[in-house]
Amino acid sequence: MLSKVLLTTFLLVWGWQAPAAAAEDPLPSWNDTPAKQAIVDFVQRVTDRSGDHFVPPAERIATFDNDGTLWAEQPAYFQLLFAFDRVRAMAGDHPEWRHEEPFKSVLAGDYRSAAASGKEGLVKVLAASHTGMTADDFRSAAKEWLATSEHPTLGRRYADCLYQPQLELLEYLRANGFKTFIVSGGGIDFLRAFAEEAYGIPPEQVVGTSIDATYEFRDGVPVIVKQPSGLFVDDKAGKPVGIYQHIGRRPILAVGNSDGDFQMLEYTTTREGPSLGVLVHHTDAEREFAYDRDSHVGKLDRGLDEAPQRGWVVVDMAKDWSTVFGEAP
Amino acid sequence: MLSKVLLTTFLLVWGWQAPAAAAEDPLPSWNDTPAKQAIVDFVQRVTDRSGDHFVPPAERIATFDNDGTLWAEQPAYFQLLFAFDRVRAMAGDHPEWRHEEPFKSVLAGDYRSAAASGKEGLVKVLAASHTGMTADDFRSAAKEWLATSEHPTLGRRYADCLYQPQLELLEYLRANGFKTFIVSGGGIDFLRAFAEEAYGIPPEQVVGTSIDATYEFRDGVPVIVKQPSGLFVDDKAGKPVGIYQHIGRRPILAVGNSDGDFQMLEYTTTREGPSLGVLVHHTDAEREFAYDRDSHVGKLDRGLDEAPQRGWVVVDMAKDWSTVFGEAP
Repeated sequence: MLSKVLLTTFLLVWGWQAPAAAAEDPLPSWNDTPAKQAIVDFVQRVTDRSGDHFVPPAERIATFDNDGTLWAEQPAYFQLLFAFDRVRAMAGDHPEWRHEEPFKSVLAGDYRSAAASGKEGLVKVLAASHTGMTADDFRSAAKEWLATSEHPTLGRRYADCLYQPQLELLEYLRANGFKTFIVSGGGIDFLRAFAEEAYGIPPEQVVGTSIDATYEFRDGVPVIVKQPSGLFVDDKAGKPVGIYQHIGRRPILAVGNSDGDFQMLEYTTTREGPSLGVLVHHTDAEREFAYDRDSHVGKLDRGLDEAPQRGWVVVDMAKDWSTVFGEAP
Repeated sequence: MLSKVLLTTFLLVWGWQAPAAAAEDPLPSWNDTPAKQAIVDFVQRVTDRSGDHFVPPAERIATFDNDGTLWAEQPAYFQLLFAFDRVRAMAGDHPEWRHEEPFKSVLAGDYRSAAASGKEGLVKVLAASHTGMTADDFRSAAKEWLATSEHPTLGRRYADCLYQPQLELLEYLRANGFKTFIVSGGGIDFLRAFAEEAYGIPPEQVVGTSIDATYEFRDGVPVIVKQPSGLFVDDKAGKPVGIYQHIGRRPILAVGNSDGDFQMLEYTTTREGPSLGVLVHHTDAEREFAYDRDSHVGKLDRGLDEAPQRGWVVVDMAKDWSTVFGEAP
């Protein structure tokens, strides 16, 4: 009796799953092009226990850049727009800002003049808007801003500027035993404010630009306070370093969209064993933005040149994605 | 027919699991004392969906100190003994060490004199043995050493000096949806050399003392190289900072054994919602070592004083653990 039930159960489970898997496309927002095929082939290869390219689940590390890879990054990094809004929100406590650049320009909404203050001005804005508060307070402010502020041209909240095909890719990878990480030049606390809800990526799987922090008591409660020192920039050659410090092993899949991701893809695709590098190419001025070699944000130049010889997949947003953004609620 | 099979399947699964769960003690190396009861009660409380103290799986973060908490730390931190052995192994390439302290003493096997060179001497030994090489090479060396070198008094390899009750606790927590992390004053690469095999804790869930690293090419291959700068000490107030940087949220359970873990337990047990702090007290001179308030390694003083009022569980190794070490192969 037992064996009969077991057999029935087995057949039942078998019978249920096989057609479902065959019928359902896990990447419906990807057109059936070579880019999609290359990704699916790779996943099938590393998960095939009987093949030569099998990779155990613990080593299936996939790292994703964020700005321009998982969500939009035009007309400027969203985090910078958040910093400007923070300055405006904090201005009541800083009357001196009315006479001090770049704050004066930021308060006047003149972002072009603010940007003209260069790196030094930017550092001032970031220090004022990103340090001195507890990590928890910062994260709440970022969460609130993302959920309520609207993108200037896309007609949706920043929190809804996520690329639908990438959400499907993240889910597809996890369903195949991958562990998905964000490895971004963005600030780690800003990313952690929304990564779990937006991408299903928990805080401990977020690697980003970071600064020093201290353990302090505020109102008798121990908290972490963000400090204006110890800047680690998780970009370019900083990305493999951030991966090493946080993850501790080489990814087998890396996805980016700019030359800031070059070293991450290089580090990934020179590992021993199977690996894949993917670059998202912003070619879709109609549904999103078109930019590459000359862009002030997300410049993609060397990556485009070297992708073919390195075997990296270049995703053409206009051709490879049937949908760019999901429904905005 | 389908519903009948489903019902049978359901009963079968039910019938198999219930008695197994009831009969099997997940913590067989823990005696049935209040310490064990407090831990089991906590786990049941936070996993009980119908109770007031339920914590969603994503927030079930458990952090463990390593030295003296998961494995032994006497007569000295194993990593220091490894550093001494590394110096001996590297001495052929450094003839100058024969005349330079503390290397001279280390090479003579006179660790007492080497230790007398103080923090400055220690930093020299660590810089020589822990930096300049690739992270991969360092990790291989540590792995090799752990698997082959023998503890001076315990009659087993260092790799076998793991506490059996803690291995069971880690497993028990994971079976209850916890994500287990190491948060140690030890070096992050040293820990990552063995944490996965020893504890089932992957590299990305290891937080430790760290130094700067660079992305470089060696023999045409991109690698991570360990640098003698940027020391972050993951101990005392550094532990909550390390947790914030790597994990990004407050643990609900923290386990340590020394005052170096005080702030980690404090940070954990002052969170909103349920939490538990556990301190392992080394009381067993017969099976392991007995030490606390006056120890040069793993000093436990303030923790013992404040544990009762803070509601932290103090594990008495002699009374609460039926076994200390597992079988040495």
